[in-house]
Amino acid sequence: MQNFTFQNTTKIVFGRDTEEEVGQYTAEHGSKVLLHYGGGSIKKYGTYDKVVESLKKAGVDYVELGGVEPNPKLSLVKEGIKLAREENVDFILAVGGGSVIDSAKAISVGYFYDGDVWDFFTREAEITEALPIGVVLTIPAAGSESSGASVVTKMDGMYKRDIGSDLIRPQFAIMNPEITFTLPNYQTACGAVDIMAHIMERYFTNTENVELTDRLSESALKTIIKNVPEVLKNNEDYAARAEVMWTGTIAHNNLLGTGREEDWSSHGIEHELSGIYDVAHGAGLAVVFPAWMEYVYQHDLERFAQFAVRVWDVDPDFKDLEWTARQGIKKTREFFKSIGMPVTLEGLDVPADRLEEMAEKATENGPIGNFVKLDTEDVLNIYKSALK
Amino acid sequence: MQNFTFQNTTKIVFGRDTEEEVGQYTAEHGSKVLLHYGGGSIKKYGTYDKVVESLKKAGVDYVELGGVEPNPKLSLVKEGIKLAREENVDFILAVGGGSVIDSAKAISVGYFYDGDVWDFFTREAEITEALPIGVVLTIPAAGSESSGASVVTKMDGMYKRDIGSDLIRPQFAIMNPEITFTLPNYQTACGAVDIMAHIMERYFTNTENVELTDRLSESALKTIIKNVPEVLKNNEDYAARAEVMWTGTIAHNNLLGTGREEDWSSHGIEHELSGIYDVAHGAGLAVVFPAWMEYVYQHDLERFAQFAVRVWDVDPDFKDLEWTARQGIKKTREFFKSIGMPVTLEGLDVPADRLEEMAEKATENGPIGNFVKLDTEDVLNIYKSALK
Repeated sequence: MQNFTFQNTTKIVFGRDTEEEVGQYTAEHGSKVLLHYGGGSIKKYGTYDKVVESLKKAGVDYVELGGVEPNPKLSLVKEGIKLAREENVDFILAVGGGSVIDSAKAISVGYFYDGDVWDFFTREAEITEALPIGVVLTIPAAGSESSGASVVTKMDGMYKRDIGSDLIRPQFAIMNPEITFTLPNYQTACGAVDIMAHIMERYFTNTENVELTDRLSESALKTIIKNVPEVLKNNEDYAARAEVMWTGTIAHNNLLGTGREEDWSSHGIEHELSGIYDVAHGAGLAVVFPAWMEYVYQHDLERFAQFAVRVWDVDPDFKDLEWTARQGIKKTREFFKSIGMPVTLEGLDVPADRLEEMAEKATENGPIGNFVKLDTEDVLNIYKSALK
Repeated sequence: MQNFTFQNTTKIVFGRDTEEEVGQYTAEHGSKVLLHYGGGSIKKYGTYDKVVESLKKAGVDYVELGGVEPNPKLSLVKEGIKLAREENVDFILAVGGGSVIDSAKAISVGYFYDGDVWDFFTREAEITEALPIGVVLTIPAAGSESSGASVVTKMDGMYKRDIGSDLIRPQFAIMNPEITFTLPNYQTACGAVDIMAHIMERYFTNTENVELTDRLSESALKTIIKNVPEVLKNNEDYAARAEVMWTGTIAHNNLLGTGREEDWSSHGIEHELSGIYDVAHGAGLAVVFPAWMEYVYQHDLERFAQFAVRVWDVDPDFKDLEWTARQGIKKTREFFKSIGMPVTLEGLDVPADRLEEMAEKATENGPIGNFVKLDTEDVLNIYKSALK
């Protein structure tokens, strides 16, 4: 186990009807709020009305900025910064999934910065101040509700880049599984893959002696594998929705990464896909992650065998760990297929003509990943192996 | 799953040599510190010197109060309150295990209260203010390093009672597994039982649909079961010590209790034992917990069967769940024995003559526990069943 520090200060408020308490939690931190959200679904299904009513009841003033798209765009972030300054807001309330929350985080750091907020994403500026943020989560997926990270896309050049700081970790996250009842199955499945990817990016490590976090990670994966098919069959299965939602937070609040070197190359490889083709992040990961596994598994057969046995209940062949390891990869891909995810670039409608460009961009700052370091050629090989 | 709120703000600083950073973490919160500790071991093994040197280097002034005993006493708490006031300290640094931390927490609330600090333990006063606390943990067991709870013993009448508030949750907990190398095996084993008990008090619940936290709990238990025997064989096994230490925190930071009704009757039953006979809390739990299990397991055979299969790798007999359930209880008790713990009151040198008195005291505020509600007679039956 490596030395580590761990602190996650976000207050989780979980369960039925909890969005009706958002006013009181917001009032603890601010009096004038930027209410940030995405498309029409929160209005269509009543969440918007409940949130606004609760804010009013708590005496919290607000201005609105909707329109956050999946893979949130820098242009809207800049609009949000301008609005937040004009209106002197002191808090941002993100009502949505990871894209809305990430957009809110970018606004929160841009608010105090005179230069271009993109400077934080290129590491030309360092985060030293941010508006406090609160969340009403509507999609279990990104884990952004309690993370200190944000991913934003700059359309000019199609760059998808991230920032990280404890200062952008939300003050509270309100999570009512009932709100997720209306998610389309495709979006639920994309979220499930994203959650699993967050766990697996930490699971595949070269750090030895990480038994507790290995086991906790396997528990979280098994919970997703069991409950997501239930949710897809019955969208209003509260118990299963709740398991998925809480696991989504645990997957990315960094508990599972304590004491371990993490990998994150699959996320990097996927970001170029969704940066250029605007595909859903989870769907992109369903294609990339198994391809990455096949490319690297021989680096540590024992770990991949453990993954196969403990996560997928594969009956191990101790004389043929390679076979055992491959069963785990096979089952991962089969699971993604079974929940309706594409597992090839073709299935994702991504053509073969810009793979070199994506591989170059994914590695523009040098090799990526830690489990196995991947250079441009490795990334290109992974894209190619995922074509069909 | 029940509705819940979850927030744990303690910063964990984990790994080799981390105690040498205590000065800088302390300086973030205070400038004059009450340095609180137990007996001679932190001086004997060099931890005291490292802590004091780090405080000095960070320019933090301090006064000392040592002498905390296992099952920390109200009398020393009062001494600490007096000293803290006289010296105008603004922070308490607890260097030790659960007893030292709990004593520090009691001082931190008493500091601001004009009445008798025991009023908080009898619920006659409510906690509204507390000095901030930091911890250098030397014994993985109580989980007090990131909990909002404290247990103190009043010798007059031999009462062992608790308080709970987010205000007494430590600001930081420094955890270096190397510091635990010098723990005697008996103390390591007592700690292991306490850690397991914290998990099991949450595991045995009537709340349905708690799959994630079930699995996380099973992971934590398996980690203890695997690593504690390693530590007892080789006291300086860093990897195994680290697993035990981090699991001890996870066991009691309340993550594993999210969304579940918890039980806590075994702790209540044990507190009367250690209140009167001053036995080690973990040793008392090793006697009480299996006796409690045998008394209540028929209330939910499926849950006890799951415990047997998932935690203890029992091969289930689906036609005889009772047999399956009993195997888990048997293996729990055998494990406690195998790590040198007593599993009867006789083994704990507790005579039979005050069982009624203890049963009365344990239930003086009414029935205890939630998995099965236990009245005075139930508690007496459990004590009696544990005699030999």
